[in-house]
Amino acid sequence: MFKDRIRSPELEGKVMTAQEAVAFFKDGMNVGMSGFTRAGDCKVMPRALAERAQTEQLKLNVVTGASLGNDSDGMMAEAGVLARRSPFQVDSVLRRHINEGKVLFTDQHLSLTVEHMRSGNLPAIDIAVIEAVAITETGAIVPTTSVGNSASFAQQAKQIIVELNLSMPVEMEGLHDIYVPEARPNRQPIELTDVDQRIGTTAIQVDPSRIVGIVVTDALDSPSSVLPPDEETQAIAGHIIEFLKGEVDAGRMSQSLLPLQVGIGTIANAVTYGLLDSPFTDLKMYSEVLQDSAIAMLDSGQLSFASASSLTLSAPKMAKFLEGLDSYRDKLVLRPQEISNHPELVRRLGIIAINTALEFDIYGNVNSTHVCGTHMMNGIGGSGDFARNAHLSIFVSKSVAKDGAISSVVPMASHVDHCEHDVAVLVSEWGLADLRGLAPRERARVIIEKCAHPDYRPALLDYVERASERGGHTPHILEEALSWHVRFQQQGTMKQEQFQTQELATA
Amino acid sequence: MFKDRIRSPELEGKVMTAQEAVAFFKDGMNVGMSGFTRAGDCKVMPRALAERAQTEQLKLNVVTGASLGNDSDGMMAEAGVLARRSPFQVDSVLRRHINEGKVLFTDQHLSLTVEHMRSGNLPAIDIAVIEAVAITETGAIVPTTSVGNSASFAQQAKQIIVELNLSMPVEMEGLHDIYVPEARPNRQPIELTDVDQRIGTTAIQVDPSRIVGIVVTDALDSPSSVLPPDEETQAIAGHIIEFLKGEVDAGRMSQSLLPLQVGIGTIANAVTYGLLDSPFTDLKMYSEVLQDSAIAMLDSGQLSFASASSLTLSAPKMAKFLEGLDSYRDKLVLRPQEISNHPELVRRLGIIAINTALEFDIYGNVNSTHVCGTHMMNGIGGSGDFARNAHLSIFVSKSVAKDGAISSVVPMASHVDHCEHDVAVLVSEWGLADLRGLAPRERARVIIEKCAHPDYRPALLDYVERASERGGHTPHILEEALSWHVRFQQQGTMKQEQFQTQELATA
Repeated sequence: MFKDRIRSPELEGKVMTAQEAVAFFKDGMNVGMSGFTRAGDCKVMPRALAERAQTEQLKLNVVTGASLGNDSDGMMAEAGVLARRSPFQVDSVLRRHINEGKVLFTDQHLSLTVEHMRSGNLPAIDIAVIEAVAITETGAIVPTTSVGNSASFAQQAKQIIVELNLSMPVEMEGLHDIYVPEARPNRQPIELTDVDQRIGTTAIQVDPSRIVGIVVTDALDSPSSVLPPDEETQAIAGHIIEFLKGEVDAGRMSQSLLPLQVGIGTIANAVTYGLLDSPFTDLKMYSEVLQDSAIAMLDSGQLSFASASSLTLSAPKMAKFLEGLDSYRDKLVLRPQEISNHPELVRRLGIIAINTALEFDIYGNVNSTHVCGTHMMNGIGGSGDFARNAHLSIFVSKSVAKDGAISSVVPMASHVDHCEHDVAVLVSEWGLADLRGLAPRERARVIIEKCAHPDYRPALLDYVERASERGGHTPHILEEALSWHVRFQQQGTMKQEQFQTQELATA
Repeated sequence: MFKDRIRSPELEGKVMTAQEAVAFFKDGMNVGMSGFTRAGDCKVMPRALAERAQTEQLKLNVVTGASLGNDSDGMMAEAGVLARRSPFQVDSVLRRHINEGKVLFTDQHLSLTVEHMRSGNLPAIDIAVIEAVAITETGAIVPTTSVGNSASFAQQAKQIIVELNLSMPVEMEGLHDIYVPEARPNRQPIELTDVDQRIGTTAIQVDPSRIVGIVVTDALDSPSSVLPPDEETQAIAGHIIEFLKGEVDAGRMSQSLLPLQVGIGTIANAVTYGLLDSPFTDLKMYSEVLQDSAIAMLDSGQLSFASASSLTLSAPKMAKFLEGLDSYRDKLVLRPQEISNHPELVRRLGIIAINTALEFDIYGNVNSTHVCGTHMMNGIGGSGDFARNAHLSIFVSKSVAKDGAISSVVPMASHVDHCEHDVAVLVSEWGLADLRGLAPRERARVIIEKCAHPDYRPALLDYVERASERGGHTPHILEEALSWHVRFQQQGTMKQEQFQTQELATA
């Protein structure tokens, strides 16, 4: 049974049901689960843990790569399994539990979670649950559509449960490049100087005796929920491409640009699709997640190589990818998120980083996580890993949300994930603000003019003018700085009556 | 003349007066000046530029390593020489000009300035002014008490003016290790794996034909203005040492700890002095600046090696250092700030980073730069280079300022330089808050209990309780979040009447 999937004879006897495997878990344990942007997540054990929690207390501290799919986070949250959760999530049920203070969520830079575990700053993993297409002759685990934190979880855990996924082809072996930095002190440089370089092994080497259970499944990854490009996301893509053309014309990069990182989500996916119509050739991605658009660009030949930690595709694109798997073998690599997002490599390679903002302020501070400064949306993800050390740190957002009731450009960000020092370019459907080398007072003018929705420009200009009279390197009127968010909370809109009139009068 | 100082015969003829050298500067030029934390700054040309600006328009964009001494920044600001200034400053006159919007200041992570120049994100340097103890046979420039950005400035500038400082011994040659990363793409790893390793040259190699002038001076560095340790800074040092002892006891590091980075200033200097009474041995520093305390620790033998970008000492300590120069030669190295602060190395070496906060909030966000969110104090300096990738990111502050009228612990930071994701430990004279692995709601309790001044604890607890009722991952009452700063601006104190009473009643 599963001869091609469990190639280590000593492990054949470890196949068990999820109900048997769940017995390894004890209340209070630290659990590391595979899964990154809903790709390669363990699918069976979260449900089995939620079921067991119906009859006895089972509170766990669950750490993943990034987001899980298959409603796993929601099920575990509802069942009370999640005492703590880190470093990222996208589940609406879990989100509610986090914002109600029922699940203690720690939002982390995605490259840092296992670094801090390795060094003892965060507790060690008791049990790792890792989805795999196969276990090799030596007991090494071959991941599926993501690597995430799985390699470090498996290295650090006392016990490992493998979810063997029969729906993923065993031919995925060879797509992954597993490299884990040594513990400090005496760590060596990460000797990766090109996006397409391989520096590790194709599977996660572990002592097979720590594999205590193998659970078999054929459940699929949750398909990508990304929306197709619309007029506004296409406009954002257009502004970025024009800007990059200018960079090429200025001699700051070649027609192949520099390696691209594009965040998860609808806008980022649209930006990548936009590159299909660009004059750039022989592009490379060094990103954390590959979406449909990346595969389309590999197919068109415009993208010559893609490195990431996960593949998060729509159902048809995934089917097509798996069908043509052999043709992608030399064009694509999946790495641990510590490596895909490593600041050492981001700085060395000179990444062009494109990430999504929830809101940004007139001085260039970016909020990626907190709605109205308080309610967690998803998490910072890898944006901070990339933004600080990128060659170009670009953040994108539609200029308004909620039918115009929310301006994404505000006087003061209600939460700061990326400080002014880490933001080079801001883009909305209205235009692109190039902030390089500008002082805060200059940034304010450019951001309002280029990125704010015209409905909000007069009020933003009025704010910055009145604030500037008070002086300061970064002028603010503190008693008004967050009033736009308060007005939205109290009146359902950030708009101010007097500026609506003014806007109509001048329109 | 200066045979031991100008060892390249072709350059002997380049000696000139400052008034002659100033003719090379043209209105609108980009000028790179040596100097880092008031060490190794060019001293003659700033004054000469300010003088020339009395009679004709001369507006320059001045980039340095970090802060200049000798009132240079103030003189140039008053004379209208500074159109733009980056990446850091500490001059009270320049500070006023920045906050009045007269000088356009760009506050930057100190490791990134020359990276962005090299890649074209920031304009290239027209003229570099570099202080030196000597120019070698091949025309290479030997810096003085700092390296800062001088190596990259000299490499990139069309013209170089050397300020030859006769008051600094020529025997300083050999203290420096000049290494500049290649332009991207195709950059190689920085092959530095130990604090005491040398990877470069002892002088800045340049094409001697670009050295257009040599100006001779014997002006001294401005001595360090750091205050001696007091009861509160000693208490902060004590908390950190107790915490680090706990880390050693828990097996997370050896008695030699991991390499230390300690920021500039009075508190940081006191923390280092505190280590003199600690049980730790064979310590190493990988820092950006060495203060009196570091030299005292080298003298005591407790510190076995110190790497930094500058030496900022008091006058007596500098005299003693220069006297014993030979004995420090194998215990100390000065590097470019891009290398002393490089995230690749900070992450690899596993730095313990100790930096000063202006204020921090109950959720762990740190403001290092802006008084009341608007007025620039100095700049972010290297704190962000270290904090994000450190093994331990520690921020310190006295719990109150202005005789208690300002609480350094506030509901919401009025400006965020270091987001919650980058802060592991906060310390005041009252105690140490270990935030590792905590969710925001947990952090609030710990920060208030451990770090806030008792006078402010009831009001902070009241805020967090009322905010928590509104829900959210990071609870806030937006209309009150910045009210402490507004109260200070309007009433001269952050204190609230009702909590003063309550505090006295329960005291």
